Amino acid sequence: EVWGKAGQLFSGLLAMNVVFLGCAFISSMIFNGVAITLRDVWIFLSILKLLSLCWTVYYLLGTSRKPHAVLFRDSHAGPVWVRGSLVLFGACSILLKVFRIGYDISHIPCKSQLQILFPCIDILFIGFQVWNFITSSSYSRLSYGWEAGKRGVQMLFPFPRCGLMLTMATDLLLWLLAVTNDTVHREIESSLKGIAALISQVTLFSFLPIGNETSSCPCPNTAICRVFQKGYLLLYPFNTEYCLISCSMLYVMWKNVGRRIAHQHTTHATPKFKLHEVFAGLVLGTCALITGICIFMIYQIQATRSASRQEAFVLYYSYYIVLLPLMTMGALAGTIIHGLEERELDTVKNPTRSLDVILLMGAALGQIAISYFSIVAIVATNPRDLLNRLILTYSVSLIIQHITQNIFIIEGLHRQPLAEDTGPATQHSGPLSDETAMSHSSQEPTPVYPLEIRQEIRTGSHSYTRTCGRLNWKRKALKEISIFLVLCNITLWIMPTFGMHPAFDNGLEKSFYGYSTWFAIVNFGLPMGVFYRMHSVAGLLEVCVSS
Amino acid sequence: EVWGKAGQLFSGLLAMNVVFLGCAFISSMIFNGVAITLRDVWIFLSILKLLSLCWTVYYLLGTSRKPHAVLFRDSHAGPVWVRGSLVLFGACSILLKVFRIGYDISHIPCKSQLQILFPCIDILFIGFQVWNFITSSSYSRLSYGWEAGKRGVQMLFPFPRCGLMLTMATDLLLWLLAVTNDTVHREIESSLKGIAALISQVTLFSFLPIGNETSSCPCPNTAICRVFQKGYLLLYPFNTEYCLISCSMLYVMWKNVGRRIAHQHTTHATPKFKLHEVFAGLVLGTCALITGICIFMIYQIQATRSASRQEAFVLYYSYYIVLLPLMTMGALAGTIIHGLEERELDTVKNPTRSLDVILLMGAALGQIAISYFSIVAIVATNPRDLLNRLILTYSVSLIIQHITQNIFIIEGLHRQPLAEDTGPATQHSGPLSDETAMSHSSQEPTPVYPLEIRQEIRTGSHSYTRTCGRLNWKRKALKEISIFLVLCNITLWIMPTFGMHPAFDNGLEKSFYGYSTWFAIVNFGLPMGVFYRMHSVAGLLEVCVSS
Repeated sequence: EVWGKAGQLFSGLLAMNVVFLGCAFISSMIFNGVAITLRDVWIFLSILKLLSLCWTVYYLLGTSRKPHAVLFRDSHAGPVWVRGSLVLFGACSILLKVFRIGYDISHIPCKSQLQILFPCIDILFIGFQVWNFITSSSYSRLSYGWEAGKRGVQMLFPFPRCGLMLTMATDLLLWLLAVTNDTVHREIESSLKGIAALISQVTLFSFLPIGNETSSCPCPNTAICRVFQKGYLLLYPFNTEYCLISCSMLYVMWKNVGRRIAHQHTTHATPKFKLHEVFAGLVLGTCALITGICIFMIYQIQATRSASRQEAFVLYYSYYIVLLPLMTMGALAGTIIHGLEERELDTVKNPTRSLDVILLMGAALGQIAISYFSIVAIVATNPRDLLNRLILTYSVSLIIQHITQNIFIIEGLHRQPLAEDTGPATQHSGPLSDETAMSHSSQEPTPVYPLEIRQEIRTGSHSYTRTCGRLNWKRKALKEISIFLVLCNITLWIMPTFGMHPAFDNGLEKSFYGYSTWFAIVNFGLPMGVFYRMHSVAGLLEVCVSS
Repeated sequence: EVWGKAGQLFSGLLAMNVVFLGCAFISSMIFNGVAITLRDVWIFLSILKLLSLCWTVYYLLGTSRKPHAVLFRDSHAGPVWVRGSLVLFGACSILLKVFRIGYDISHIPCKSQLQILFPCIDILFIGFQVWNFITSSSYSRLSYGWEAGKRGVQMLFPFPRCGLMLTMATDLLLWLLAVTNDTVHREIESSLKGIAALISQVTLFSFLPIGNETSSCPCPNTAICRVFQKGYLLLYPFNTEYCLISCSMLYVMWKNVGRRIAHQHTTHATPKFKLHEVFAGLVLGTCALITGICIFMIYQIQATRSASRQEAFVLYYSYYIVLLPLMTMGALAGTIIHGLEERELDTVKNPTRSLDVILLMGAALGQIAISYFSIVAIVATNPRDLLNRLILTYSVSLIIQHITQNIFIIEGLHRQPLAEDTGPATQHSGPLSDETAMSHSSQEPTPVYPLEIRQEIRTGSHSYTRTCGRLNWKRKALKEISIFLVLCNITLWIMPTFGMHPAFDNGLEKSFYGYSTWFAIVNFGLPMGVFYRMHSVAGLLEVCVSS
C-alpha cells in the first residue's frame, strides 16, 4: 500500500510537470507566435507521443506473453458502449489523420517533410492506444503490472502508473491544443474577414483547424485535395472528443492500478433489451431525434443567409425550450420512482462509479457556465425582443435539465442491479446462487460489512426478485424514461458536434463580453458540453439496463 | 449515510450554482463595466454575505444552548497555528474594513451612503465567521448538527452543509473579486500612466484595490485620509489571504459533517519545543530570515529608481538561488531520514490529512505554473545576459524546491506521532496507557484493521518509545530541518505578501506573453503561492512537533 501511494505521488507529479510545461508551450505559441511556432509545439507533443508509444508497446508485449496476466477485472468499469465509442472515435481520428496526410501530400511543394511525419506518429499513437484500451479488458490488466512489480518479478513498480500518466498528460495537451488552436484560428479568420467569414465557417462545420498557412498555401484546384480538406474538417470534432474520452479512461485505469477486486466473476449478468418494454420511450425519443435532425438541417441552410438567420435562431431555441422541460420532467419522475423503489441503495465504495459521477458533474460545468454567462448578459442588457427572451428561457432550462439529469443518473447508478435469475437461484441453497448474489451485492472486498448485513441484503434482493420477477410499473417506467433521455441526449450531442453553435452565432453575448472573452468561454464550455452528452448517454444506458 | 450523500450532493450543487453566477457577474463587470458595475457586484455579494451571516448566527445560537453538543472532535484537524493565523488574518481584514470606512467617510461628499454599508456588512460577516471557526472546536461541532438532524430533533438535515457551502462560495467569490479587481485596476492604471505609475505602485505595496473612482474623487489633503488610505493598501493582501484560508477551513468542515470519530480523547499529547533540540535549524533559519528582510528593504528602495532596478533584481534572484537549493537539500535529507526511521507509516484513512495534502499540492501549482511559463519564455527568446540566466536558474530551482518540500511534508504527515510517555505507559498494563496508545495509533474507527495488527502497531510503537525515549539523531535532524524550512518559508511568504513581485516587474515575460496574459497568470499564481507558503509552514510545524 505504501509503494502504491508513492507510485501515485510520483506519477501524479510527473503528469503535473508535463502538463504545465505543455501549457506554457501552447500559451507561448498563442501569445507569441514568433518565438514559439506551431511546429515547435508539434515537435514537443511528438516526443511525448513517442514516449507514450514506447510504454504502450512495451506494456502490451510484457503482458501478452503471460496469458494469465489478467488476474483482476473490474466488471463495473468499461461497459461495452464506452469501449465501443472509444473505438469509433479512435477510428475517426485515424481517418482524420489519413485525410490530413493526403491533404499535405497533395500540396507538398510548399510543405516541409516534417509536417507529414506528425500525422504518421499520430496514427501509431492512436492505434496502439485504442488497441491497449480494448485488450486491457475492463481497464484492469494493469493490476497485473502492479502485482508483478510488487513481487519484484518483472516491472519496476511505478512504471505502469508513470506510463499511464504520461499518456494522459499527452492526451490532455492534445485536447488543449485542439481547443486553443481553433480559438486562435477563428480569431484571426474573423478579424480579417468579418461576418462573411463567420457564416461560411458555420457551413464548414465551424471547426477550422488548418492554421493560417492555408492563406499562403491554398489547396490546388483538384477534386482530391478538396475531398481531403472536407473530410479533415468534418472529422475534426471527433478527434477532440477522442482526446477527452481517452483522458478519462486513462484516469480510470490509473485509479485502478493496484486496486484489489475480490470477486473476479466475469459472469456479469447482461440483461437483454426487450423492445416492447421500452416502446413508448423509444417512440418519443425517436420523434425528438428526427425533429432535431430536421431542425439541424434547416438551421444549417438558413443560417448561411443573413436574411433568415433570425428565424433559424428562433426555430432552434424553440425546439430546445420544448425538449428541455420534457427531459427535466422525465428525470424528475425517474428520481421520484427511484425513491419509491424497493431496490436497495448500493452504498459500497466503488472507485469507478465515484469517478463516473465526478466526470458527469465536471463535464456538466461547461454548459452550465455558458448558460450562467448568457443569463447575466441578457438580464444586464434587458432587451425585450422575442429572441432574447427565448435565449433566457433556454439558458435557465438548460441549467435545470443538467442538474435534474445528473441527480437521476447518480441515483440510478447507486441502485443495485437486480439479480435476474428467478429460477432455482431464489432458493438460495446452492453455492452457485450464493456466489452470484455475492458478486452482485458487492464488487469490492468489504470487510466493513458484517456477515448479517450481507445476508440481509442478499435475502432482501432475493425476495424482491421473487415477488417482482416480471417488470412492475416502476421498473418499466424507469426503462422508458432512460431510453427517452438517451435518444434526447444523442440529439443534443449531434447538434453542437456538427457545428451548430448559436451561443456564438447569435451575437448577443459576443457584443456584451467582447469577442475574445466570449470566445474563450464558449470554446472551453462547448467541448465539455459535448462530452457531457456522450457521458450521460453511457450513464443512462447503464441505468436502463440495470433497472 | 444515504442522507449524508444526498446532503453533500445538494449542498455541492448549491455552491456550484452560486459560484458560477458570481463568476458571470464578476466577468461581466470586468468585460462590460457599463451594464454591470462594481456596485452591482457588491450588492450581489452583500446578499450572499447576509445569508451566510444568518446561517452562522442561527447555527451558533442553536449549538450554544446545548453545552454537550460537541460530541465529536477531530483532533487531527485545526491545530492551534491554523486557527491562530485565521484569527490574525481575520483581525487584519476587520481592521482593513475599518480603514475603508474611515477613508470613505473622510470624503463622503462624492460617495453614496451605500458604499459605507458594504464594509459594515463585511465586518459582521468576518467577525461572526472567525467566531464560528474558533468556537466550533476543531471544526467538528458541525457533526452535532448532522447528528441532531438525523434524529429529526432540531435541524433539517442538509442545513449545516448548505450553510457551509454558501459561506464557502461567498469567500471564494470575494477572493476572485479581490484578484480580478486588482487586475483591472492595474491594467487601467498602467495603460493611463505607463511605467511611472507602475513604479509608484510597487512602492505602494503593489496591491491597489481602490477602483478608478480615486481619479474622480481624490483624497482630500488631510493627514487622516492619507493614513486610512495607506492602512487600507497595506492590509489589502491579508484580506485576500483570509478568504483563501477560510475557504479551505470551510471545506474541511464540510467534509467533516457527519463523519464519525470514535476516539474523542481530547488528551492530545502536545509535545513541547525544546530550544536546544532545534538550535542549529533555528540559527540557520533566522539568518535566512534576516537576510531576506534586508534584501526586501533594499529591493523596495532600489526598485523605485529606474537606474538601480537591474541591481535590485540581481540581488533578489541571487538570494533565491542561494536559499532554494539549501531548502531543497534540507527537504531531500529529511525525506531520506524519514525512510530510515523506525516509526511506522500511518496508512489509516484520514480525510483531514488527505485534504491537507491536496491543499498543499494544489497551492503549489500556482508558483509552479508561473515558473514553467518563465522558463519557456526565457528558453524561447534565448537571451544571454546575467539577469535572464539568473531568472532561469531561479525558476528551475523553485520548481524543484516545491516538489521536494511537498514530498517531505507528505512523508512527515504520514508518520505516526510518537507516544511520548516513556514512564509507566510502556508496561501497557493499565487501561489508561492502552487508551492513549489507541488514540495515537488510529484517529478513525477502523474496523478494517484486525485486532492483531493493531496490537502489533501498539507494541511496536511502545518498544520504539522504550528504546528511543530520548531524541536520537534522526528525530533531532528532522526537527532541525523542519524548523529551518519553517523560517525559510516565512521569509518567502513575507516577500510577495508585502509587494515584491519581480516576476511582474522584470518585464521579460511581460513583453513575451503580452501585458494582460502575463498579468492574469501572475495574478492567479501569486496569491496561491503565498497561500502555499503559509500552508507549508503549518505542515512543517506539524512535522516538527510530531517527529
